[in-house]
Amino acid sequence: MKQLIFLFSILISLNLSAQTDADNIKKIYSNSLTNGKSYEWLDHLSTQIGSRLSGSLGAERAVEYTKEELEKLGLDKVWLQPVMVPKWVRGAPEFAYIETSPGVTTPINICALGGSIATPNGGVKAHVIEVKSLAELATLGEAIIKGKIVFYNRPMQADLINTFEAYGGCVDQRYAGAMEAGKYGAVGVIVRSMNLRMDDFPHTGSMSYGDLPNSQRIPSAAISTNHAELLSGMLALDKKINVFFSQNCQQLKDVQSYNVIGEITGSEFPNEYIVVGGHLDSWDLGDGSHDDGAGVVQSMDVLRLLKESGIKPKRSIRVVLFMNEENGLRGGNKYAEVAKAKGENHIFALESDSGGFTPRGFSFDCNDAVFNKVMQWESLFKPYLIHYFEKGHGGADIGPLKNGTTVLAGLVPDSQRYFDYHHASNDTFDAVNKRELELGAATMTALVYLFDKYGIGTISNKEELKD
Amino acid sequence: MKQLIFLFSILISLNLSAQTDADNIKKIYSNSLTNGKSYEWLDHLSTQIGSRLSGSLGAERAVEYTKEELEKLGLDKVWLQPVMVPKWVRGAPEFAYIETSPGVTTPINICALGGSIATPNGGVKAHVIEVKSLAELATLGEAIIKGKIVFYNRPMQADLINTFEAYGGCVDQRYAGAMEAGKYGAVGVIVRSMNLRMDDFPHTGSMSYGDLPNSQRIPSAAISTNHAELLSGMLALDKKINVFFSQNCQQLKDVQSYNVIGEITGSEFPNEYIVVGGHLDSWDLGDGSHDDGAGVVQSMDVLRLLKESGIKPKRSIRVVLFMNEENGLRGGNKYAEVAKAKGENHIFALESDSGGFTPRGFSFDCNDAVFNKVMQWESLFKPYLIHYFEKGHGGADIGPLKNGTTVLAGLVPDSQRYFDYHHASNDTFDAVNKRELELGAATMTALVYLFDKYGIGTISNKEELKD
Repeated sequence: MKQLIFLFSILISLNLSAQTDADNIKKIYSNSLTNGKSYEWLDHLSTQIGSRLSGSLGAERAVEYTKEELEKLGLDKVWLQPVMVPKWVRGAPEFAYIETSPGVTTPINICALGGSIATPNGGVKAHVIEVKSLAELATLGEAIIKGKIVFYNRPMQADLINTFEAYGGCVDQRYAGAMEAGKYGAVGVIVRSMNLRMDDFPHTGSMSYGDLPNSQRIPSAAISTNHAELLSGMLALDKKINVFFSQNCQQLKDVQSYNVIGEITGSEFPNEYIVVGGHLDSWDLGDGSHDDGAGVVQSMDVLRLLKESGIKPKRSIRVVLFMNEENGLRGGNKYAEVAKAKGENHIFALESDSGGFTPRGFSFDCNDAVFNKVMQWESLFKPYLIHYFEKGHGGADIGPLKNGTTVLAGLVPDSQRYFDYHHASNDTFDAVNKRELELGAATMTALVYLFDKYGIGTISNKEELKD
Repeated sequence: MKQLIFLFSILISLNLSAQTDADNIKKIYSNSLTNGKSYEWLDHLSTQIGSRLSGSLGAERAVEYTKEELEKLGLDKVWLQPVMVPKWVRGAPEFAYIETSPGVTTPINICALGGSIATPNGGVKAHVIEVKSLAELATLGEAIIKGKIVFYNRPMQADLINTFEAYGGCVDQRYAGAMEAGKYGAVGVIVRSMNLRMDDFPHTGSMSYGDLPNSQRIPSAAISTNHAELLSGMLALDKKINVFFSQNCQQLKDVQSYNVIGEITGSEFPNEYIVVGGHLDSWDLGDGSHDDGAGVVQSMDVLRLLKESGIKPKRSIRVVLFMNEENGLRGGNKYAEVAKAKGENHIFALESDSGGFTPRGFSFDCNDAVFNKVMQWESLFKPYLIHYFEKGHGGADIGPLKNGTTVLAGLVPDSQRYFDYHHASNDTFDAVNKRELELGAATMTALVYLFDKYGIGTISNKEELKD
């Protein structure tokens, strides 16, 4: 009988606990949708401050602004974590055209890739070799490539459902295209924008020369998808056409910048840390509303929503707004380095860096035991149409925290529209929907709430008890 | 041993069948995303033809265009099904302002509700009573309402995840607001637009006077959410302000129109029909790209995608482009009436009328046995992030087919942005994303493929065999 009562009381307490979780999560979503701050913060970050490339005035203003806003929330601590960042500047606008015969030109929309060198004064003009891959380039060799502009034109694969997979299948052209073409004596590189849509926006993004000597470094630019098709079509008619492009970008000396950090100190386990974050820097085109203004304001709102919903975290919850994800990852590396030096025990880190679209779920970088336990929370998310719980990538900025223990996760929003805006001048505030952004903030908060409440130590212990 | 071999061969055939289904569905999605026609058709329907209110030139052009396009697909039959439709016209643009003192006016954005009468010549100007519900109106009664303009200002509930639920909780104000206020001698009605976002677009939609005598019928209009807030704020400061509005709409005589129907005749069970459809008419503001141009072109593409993917339907598959969903449902009623008169056995009808956004799943109007069988197909949809399988509403146009046997279903896209555009002048082609539209078409095609292959007779039989 005693055992029965014991069992009964356990069942009741389990049920009450589930009830409380469901209630608290409902409160979180409701607060975010009726009383969220994320959209207002994003409006300021995007519309008042604008683009935030590392080392730019916008980046520094974003540091100040988000620090001030976090201070208004009455967190236990807010501070700046110094980090030196690279400073690449675009300079005077790019200019490019196709020349079909002397003096007969058609302008094309290009933008310098981040990290690229400038063209020589007066630009570069040359015949064009179109290739679909780095492998195809290698088969052509120096005899054909030397003195030419290499045009990488492999499109993103449209029939992949996850557009990040399509991006992953193409981005080698952008990142390593100039490095490889430079080895064969090309004079410049034009890369089809990483965009699934046909439009007129060139999309920038990081590229690298690796260890290439300066003599082999060549300028590289992205071309809009519409103009990639145009150029390809014109080349099919006449291989002898020229492309001219001029760009004025340069890499300056590293400058001082900061990660912005706010913390609610845990009431029971203050030395267990949970991080939620996005990156404060953006590319210089557009205002970085989706990439990653959305992740920044959602992460800020996680701490506010916890407070607002009357939840007192047991563990220390930190929002970290990382600097320099786009062209260096210095902020992510710095945060992990300091955490390690201080011996801080990070149990969980969650990043939002896939756009402010309707959230679908999370990808988890963790072991099976933790993942199986997370899956037990799945039903708590069902009322909010959060259904995607898969193992996968956490996020670039939180990546350096990976140590075999810390659970990493990434918010997974609907990805269909993301590459319409990614790194382009149309990544602006009007492309973000308020409710979608707020649903994302609530979804992150709910997961942080569960990790805070149950920890990963508890999860592992339970798992062991069961075995 | 014989039994074992028999069992083994069943297992193999089951596995092959599942394999084939997965392969065919993959082919369908791949075709839609790389070679879809839905977006091109929508471009024409939206950009070249434009709005398609029943009885308008646009509606008639849409009938011609979609019939021609279906004929190009080489279906077994394409025909027009005559149906008489109501013809309501907006007339000269509406005009409205708030008057805070004589001659001091602030313009406000309104549009007449569909079915409303015009204001008297020279418009109507009166004091305003703001209410939050029909129930609140009833408590005020004639003494307070008579001679006033009633302003219904209950917003859509932001913390509901399904925005259609929020719409359902508000739309009584639009549909019955004038009918109820007219009974108390109001001179006009202004209804807050059914829109979760704060913006400047008034959203039209159907309203009814019920059996109200002409003497009690009063003009009713929608006001944009921004201006609903403005008006409410100004009323809070001063109850004596006036609102003026003028509108010039009228209900003309019914005119001839058509449902557009195309059919692939079934190879094994030609007398079992599967219908897939959307509605060809739209409101007159915007071009009806989401409502319901998207559903029209997706439904057309279902038949094309089946052919394109080498699938020969066993049953007869019909695309039905219904006329007059918005203000009469005459097309839906006519189709069901003719089907019944001919004794056609419709086993399944699928409607897309919730916007061209990323598809999440389906809502099914059917019995448990069928629903349980459908749930066995769930895993086939998982690679496409289609996760929502719930019992619920099928669709307005296919509703009249409900007879206790026919399975009805509605495509369920992500609903967060839908009411940003619904029935407003910003429901235009640029608000539709190509991939999202194509994913919807593929998702519908996959479900039609499964219903065609397995039927509902087979499903029920299987169910009985199991029992």
